[in-house]
Amino acid sequence: MSKYVIGVDIGGTLTKFGLFTTGGERVDQWKMTTNSEDNGKHLSSHIVKNIKERFVKHSITEDNLTGIGIGVPGFIDESSGVVDVAVNIGWANYPLKAILEKAFNVPVFVNNDANLAAAGEHWNGAGKRSVSTFFITLGTGVGGGLIANGDLVTGANGTAGEIGHTLVVPNGRLCTCGREGCLEEYVASKGLRRSLRNYLRNFEGSSSLHKDNEAIDIYEAAKTGDTLAGQIVNESAYYLAYAVANAVMIINPEKIIIGGGMPAAGNILLQPLVIQFKRFVLKEADKNLSFEFAQLGNDAGIYGASWLALKRLGYFCHQD
Amino acid sequence: MSKYVIGVDIGGTLTKFGLFTTGGERVDQWKMTTNSEDNGKHLSSHIVKNIKERFVKHSITEDNLTGIGIGVPGFIDESSGVVDVAVNIGWANYPLKAILEKAFNVPVFVNNDANLAAAGEHWNGAGKRSVSTFFITLGTGVGGGLIANGDLVTGANGTAGEIGHTLVVPNGRLCTCGREGCLEEYVASKGLRRSLRNYLRNFEGSSSLHKDNEAIDIYEAAKTGDTLAGQIVNESAYYLAYAVANAVMIINPEKIIIGGGMPAAGNILLQPLVIQFKRFVLKEADKNLSFEFAQLGNDAGIYGASWLALKRLGYFCHQD
Repeated sequence: MSKYVIGVDIGGTLTKFGLFTTGGERVDQWKMTTNSEDNGKHLSSHIVKNIKERFVKHSITEDNLTGIGIGVPGFIDESSGVVDVAVNIGWANYPLKAILEKAFNVPVFVNNDANLAAAGEHWNGAGKRSVSTFFITLGTGVGGGLIANGDLVTGANGTAGEIGHTLVVPNGRLCTCGREGCLEEYVASKGLRRSLRNYLRNFEGSSSLHKDNEAIDIYEAAKTGDTLAGQIVNESAYYLAYAVANAVMIINPEKIIIGGGMPAAGNILLQPLVIQFKRFVLKEADKNLSFEFAQLGNDAGIYGASWLALKRLGYFCHQD
Repeated sequence: MSKYVIGVDIGGTLTKFGLFTTGGERVDQWKMTTNSEDNGKHLSSHIVKNIKERFVKHSITEDNLTGIGIGVPGFIDESSGVVDVAVNIGWANYPLKAILEKAFNVPVFVNNDANLAAAGEHWNGAGKRSVSTFFITLGTGVGGGLIANGDLVTGANGTAGEIGHTLVVPNGRLCTCGREGCLEEYVASKGLRRSLRNYLRNFEGSSSLHKDNEAIDIYEAAKTGDTLAGQIVNESAYYLAYAVANAVMIINPEKIIIGGGMPAAGNILLQPLVIQFKRFVLKEADKNLSFEFAQLGNDAGIYGASWLALKRLGYFCHQD
């Protein structure tokens, strides 16, 4: 009789589920709309109901469930499984672990969604189960997640891997965090749009770009040879390379995985990034390193949540 | 009958030994001169002989030895236990693990000496067994070691924690690694002396410093209120704070431990460091963080080497 874990990835719009055997095989995956009405007070009962229905569909008895991993877009206290804040859901000081453990009578492991996306890519995506993986998400801003010695590193208060808030320009652009010169003010869609607006004020060459363009337009224009777009992308690659080279000096990973919404940019970003990175990185730290694009897309979260449950329950012994 | 591990810390001048019970109690510690004649070919047999003699002294039979941890000043291939290069000893491609395992018939774990000093401080020094510790050595240059999730992180090829080679000044001072603007060109004795010589060319105020002063003289002068010395120390604290704040963003440690030869500088360094750090660090990452001076001095290595053996042999279960 197979034993199972469930991986849940709560997003602002959709909540995704994955059913895995304890051997790590994916049996099923599905999703539902995230109900965040009334500060998310209905969401956990919807999750419970949804899982129980799926068990009936697969003729699995609840006795065969061994654990649940769950990713939440917010700040989590890992040991207590309390969601400190999840703005998009409406949860504050919400005892998610306790609620789900009561409903299923199995251990529940809660973590941040970006960390679990990193774990998912490490486990079954571009990380290929390397010893250490640094996952960087380029979307609106810049996030990250870190796997070292085969385990998720979240740090003393959950901010490990947050490369978007490393400083790259002394007294640089003001960031929403209140500090000046954070990486995410220079890269990803936030930084690119900011660069575009700055440049348009003084740019004298011809360009197809205008102030309302999005990051993806800038990448597309760069691909067609637009000078201004090329300049903005190269500048962003410079800062990203600088920050990544410094992060690599601290954690010396085997894989750097680029995920989030921006891999659509493809080689137009990756090529100058790698060229600049080689300039900045210490040779010894670059020996066993490769850059990869994320492979799991929106499924990374359910893989990572299932990985978390399997890992904490001890189902990975010498390999994870 | 007690079981034991041995921790060995090979230095360029002295090799230190620690005898610990598998419960983690230190029973004895001693040292011998490091014989690096003939490219270090006699050193491992001296180590074997020395340990065996000490066992006789304590009336311990070799059956009660369960493992050995050993730190080497050089680049190590951890899995094979081969010392790729240890310049000060003369070893190159030297199969240290295999040699000691043959002599004692127990598992031997080899690692870099700075990493094991970090592990020692984490285990029995200023780290106080926190979940994550970042150990920074300020000596001639700047080294480092990283403990995350209670385990040593050495990375894909042993360069994790090497904060001395993070870049802090774009197109800055040329480093011996060939790159420009590395942290260690601005802090520790190397950087301070460089700053001193640069400043003396143009400095117009009065100062007791001259071009042959060492870093420790600069710290001492700063303590007495020397303006130039104060400026050099503050500038060095600025760069160190900048690099540490960025490292903290990646690994979010609980403790930052300052070790190496420079803690003699004491508060004259720590005070501006912490002030600047608070300016640079993301508030969330600073919540559970404290700066400490190393506590074990030259004993850190034998503690760390013993910790490595105990850890890899599984003697720490839920606590390390």
